[in-house]
Order: sequence, then C-alpha cells, then structure tokens
Amino acid sequence: MRRAVVGVMGPGEGASRESVELAQRLGRLIAQEGWVTLSGGRNVGVMRAVNAGAKEIAGSLTVGILPSASSDVCPDVDVMIVTEMHNARNNINVLSSDVVVACGNAGMGTVSEIALALKGGKTVFLLGADQETRALFRKLGHERVVEVATPEETIEIIKRLALCR
Amino acid sequence: MRRAVVGVMGPGEGASRESVELAQRLGRLIAQEGWVTLSGGRNVGVMRAVNAGAKEIAGSLTVGILPSASSDVCPDVDVMIVTEMHNARNNINVLSSDVVVACGNAGMGTVSEIALALKGGKTVFLLGADQETRALFRKLGHERVVEVATPEETIEIIKRLALCR
Amino acid sequence: MRRAVVGVMGPGEGASRESVELAQRLGRLIAQEGWVTLSGGRNVGVMRAVNAGAKEIAGSLTVGILPSASSDVCPDVDVMIVTEMHNARNNINVLSSDVVVACGNAGMGTVSEIALALKGGKTVFLLGADQETRALFRKLGHERVVEVATPEETIEIIKRLALCR
Amino acid sequence: MRRAVVGVMGPGEGASRESVELAQRLGRLIAQEGWVTLSGGRNVGVMRAVNAGAKEIAGSLTVGILPSASSDVCPDVDVMIVTEMHNARNNINVLSSDVVVACGNAGMGTVSEIALALKGGKTVFLLGADQETRALFRKLGHERVVEVATPEETIEIIKRLALCR
Repeated sequence: MRRAVVGVMGPGEGASRESVELAQRLGRLIAQEGWVTLSGGRNVGVMRAVNAGAKEIAGSLTVGILPSASSDVCPDVDVMIVTEMHNARNNINVLSSDVVVACGNAGMGTVSEIALALKGGKTVFLLGADQETRALFRKLGHERVVEVATPEETIEIIKRLALCR
Repeated sequence: MRRAVVGVMGPGEGASRESVELAQRLGRLIAQEGWVTLSGGRNVGVMRAVNAGAKEIAGSLTVGILPSASSDVCPDVDVMIVTEMHNARNNINVLSSDVVVACGNAGMGTVSEIALALKGGKTVFLLGADQETRALFRKLGHERVVEVATPEETIEIIKRLALCR
Repeated sequence: MRRAVVGVMGPGEGASRESVELAQRLGRLIAQEGWVTLSGGRNVGVMRAVNAGAKEIAGSLTVGILPSASSDVCPDVDVMIVTEMHNARNNINVLSSDVVVACGNAGMGTVSEIALALKGGKTVFLLGADQETRALFRKLGHERVVEVATPEETIEIIKRLALCR
Repeated sequence: MRRAVVGVMGPGEGASRESVELAQRLGRLIAQEGWVTLSGGRNVGVMRAVNAGAKEIAGSLTVGILPSASSDVCPDVDVMIVTEMHNARNNINVLSSDVVVACGNAGMGTVSEIALALKGGKTVFLLGADQETRALFRKLGHERVVEVATPEETIEIIKRLALCR
C-alpha cells in the first residue's frame, strides 16, 4: 500500500555541522511518523545524517536515489535506486517525494532540486536555508515555499497541510 | 540496512494469462525470502501480478519505478519512484536490481530491459520466455542468462548463486 | 569536426518582452560567430527567440533538446533531440554546451539549469537576470558566474575567455 | 528548418569488419541525401565508421549522443550531445531519429535500441543482422522491421516509405 515519502535534499561534502544536525533530527521525526525517507543516498553530509536519524527508529524505511553504481552509498539506506544519470537524477528525487525538504546550507545540487521540485508542483520546505536561497525561491515559488527553522516545525506543517497521508 | 532487490520485468497490456500467473507466484516467493520486489510499477500485466503476489505476504516491500507521474500505479506498490523518463527508466529498473527476472512472453519493453541488464552486468533469468527471446539472449549473454521454467526454480538458483544477500 | 556550442537557457511562457529581445539578438550574434545555438527547443519565449535570431544568419545551426516527443517545437530548430525526460533534460542542455547563457528573467527551469551547469563545471553568463538570481549564483558560483548586460558583451567575454573554439 | 535525421546504431568494441564497412558506406549515402547522421558518438566500431563515412561528403552534419562527458568522442562528430545517462541515453538516440538503422552484428546495446525504437513507434532497418536478432524482432515488430542487405537498399526504402523528409 502506497506509503508517504518525504524527500530530504541537502549538501554532501559541503554540509555545515548545523545542516547535519538538522538532518539527523529530521530523519528521526520522519521515521516516527511512519513516513519513508528519500534522499540522494550518498554517504556524506545531509544525505548520510538524515538516513542515520531515520534508522534510529525501529521499522523505518529509507530510500536512496544514487547518481551512479559506483557512488559511495550510505549504509543506512535500505533500498538503493541506481540511476546512472548523475545530476539528472535530481529530478527523480523530487518527483518521487510527496513533499521536499531542503535541509541546511544549499549548494548547487540542492538549489537545482528546489527549482525542479517547484517546477514539478511540489511544496518545498526551506529548513535553515541561507538568506539568498530564501530570497530567490520565495520570489519564484510563492506559497509553495515554506520557510522553517526547526525539524519539529517542518513535521508539524507537513501534517497540518496534509501533504503526507 | 541494504536490502536485496529482485527486479521483475514483463509485459503490461500484452501479458498472457500464463505470464500473469507466473508473476504472482514469483512475487509471493520473493517476499517469503524477505527480498524487495522491484517492477515497472504500472497496474497491468506482470507488473500488477508480481506486486499482488508479494503483498500476500505480511511485511513484504514492493517498489515501482514509474515511467511518469500520470502512470496508473499498481495499488500494491509500497514505494513509488516517479521518473518522468518514460522508457529510459528501464535502465534504472535493471540497475537497481541485484538480479533481474524477465517473466513471461517478453514484449519490446522487456526485451530492452533484458539487453540493458546484461549490458549493466546483471544476471538475467528468463522465466517462461518464448523461443526467439531465449535464442537471442543465450547467444548474447552466455552464462549470465539463466533459462528457467518455474518461479520455484528461479528462487532456488538465485539462492544457490548467492545473488541476493 | 567538433563545433562550438552555446547553450541559451531562459523562460518559456513567462518570458518578459525584454528577455525575448535579448535572446533574439544573442542568437544572431552566436550564429555570426559560427557557433551552434543550443536551447530547450520549445516554440515559446527565449527558446523561440534565440532560434529565430540565429536563423537570420545564413548557414547557422540550431539544436533543440526537447522535453518530450509531443512538445511544440520551434520551427527554427534544425536538429531536434527528443529526450522524453521532461525537466531532467535540463542537465543535458547544459552538459552539451561549451558555455551557458541564462537569458532574461529566470524562472524555475532556468534556475535549475544555472545550478546544474555550475555543478557540471560550466561557466554561466547571467544576461539581464534579476537581483535575487544574481545574488544567489554569485555566492554559489564565484568566478564561474559572469554577470552581463548585453548580448554583445556576452560574446566578447566568451571570446576573451576562449570558451568556444 | 527541421532536418531529417537517420539514427545509425551498432556495435562499438565488438563490431565485425563487415559491420564497420557497412556503416561507412551507409554514412556516406545518408550524407549524400542531405540527411543528418545521428549515432552514439563514441570513437569505435559502427559509431566511428558511420561518422567517418558521412564526413567524406562536404556539408554533411553528424550528431553524437554521448553516454558521458568522459566518453572518447569520435572526431567526425560535429555536434556532441552529452547526456551523462550512460545506457539510458539509448532511448534518446532512437527517439531523436526519423528512422533507425541497426547496422551489423547487434550487441546488447544495439538490441536495447532496436527494442526501444519499436516501442517508440519508429521503423527499424536491420542491416546485416544475425539470424537470432532478425527472428526476434520480426516477431515483435512486424511490418515496422525492415530486413535489408545493403546500405543502398536501406536508403532506397527510406525514400520509398518517405521516412525522411
């Protein structure tokens, strides 16, 4: 039976310590709701942390959409989707998510995912985003861009807006 | 923790009754082993049957790699991956599987998947395939093509070759 | 023999009049240099205008990377590449270009292309971009983001940096 | 103005001497008709030969759809489309062609392209194909599969069926 999926996008190598902490808490909360955690699947930065957080909860499910077969996959990913499409897989990440959370200090990959998610009709949460990212996407995405400060607030608004069922 | 994935490919609209029955039994057996069932995710033919079979078993997990957001998705799919890549998603189907089973009377989509799986280094089982499909892929794939007659035999050989761990 | 390719990205339905005028002039100048014009290929906005501009010059070559077979293709496109990958084709647009010019008021598609181009190691020109787009990408792309005001300046800097040979 | 495109698919590393000779003659004939030659773009086998043949004719145009940015590209390719999608790019090869010619002893990549071309509604010529490839696709593709023995016959039938205009 169809399970709700939260896509968590964020920096890999360039992730700040704060981004990583937000991601780990967010993963735990997503799993507590019984939702699936979807990420880019690599073993670094926000991708690694959100999966680690989710796997703290028994019975959680994590899906990683990998750029290539040779990617260093996060060991906390349960199901690996191997695309061999490199950054074009970013579009699959967001289209496969009921809602997208951009977590932390967005790099170029995350910015492309926010843009593709909005273009694909998704609601995007900006969690702990920098000033410039917020300014651009507030302008482009209007009410489908939700700026949040904490993982707890993110989950609360996802529930209130009934984005995951 | 990484879970083993069996990709089951086969005809949609043009599936024979026999193909559908093979797929349903195969899905049940995959789920009994605790393996994930991966398919093209649409609500027709082999895709529908293999997911229905898997969901007869409690705790099973089914993943569907959909051609587009508007595809008619099988309700027995737990996790939907939305590619918006149409038939180019066939390459993702096979690369994301530890082993690929082509189930029933192969149409053009399935033939492309067998070829892409072999090119991607996967072992491919031909379950109930017609003469012409077997002749071509036996020639092209050598020992990585395994011709089988029943779902039970498929599972047994997957285990013997340790393709899913 | 390998020909130099300038990728011109920009809004479709939401293009401003100014964006369209910049695109048409830019297309003409690219063609005058003997470079190939590459775009998203649809018959609207910046895509339409840049191809129309290029085809004012005899012997020019225009390539359109179409999202789908049913896209409304610009009649000034000489060679159509049909991807059936929808917005994931944005990554192909930028990877196939020696240099990328984001022309006019960037929408979500163009923002994804700028981000993917930078991630793919390309130099990106922002021609007539709005304040927020410039602020974000200046921060993310550093010296690989070149802010320009006119098509003439764009061509001059492409030549000075020897980006098209 | 839209130009007619003939997609020529065939083996790379495993190409027979005969396949290479057929491809070179075919490329020359396609160029003589003023049609664009589209291939997988790599510098080996049928891909290399068809482009070399086309470039014997002044004013010819060759397009190569490359699997990745690091592919060894054929120097006779005029316009490189860089997909970074590896074998999933096979679907783009066939969808971007008005007609597809599978040239020589088909390997797994070519078999996937024939299947994807038929699924995408294209007419496919099998030029010098082996027995097993012909048997399978004759069965699957019916009247959209044309078995030919020479490049000359291929061009003649493309014209008779008005597949390139």
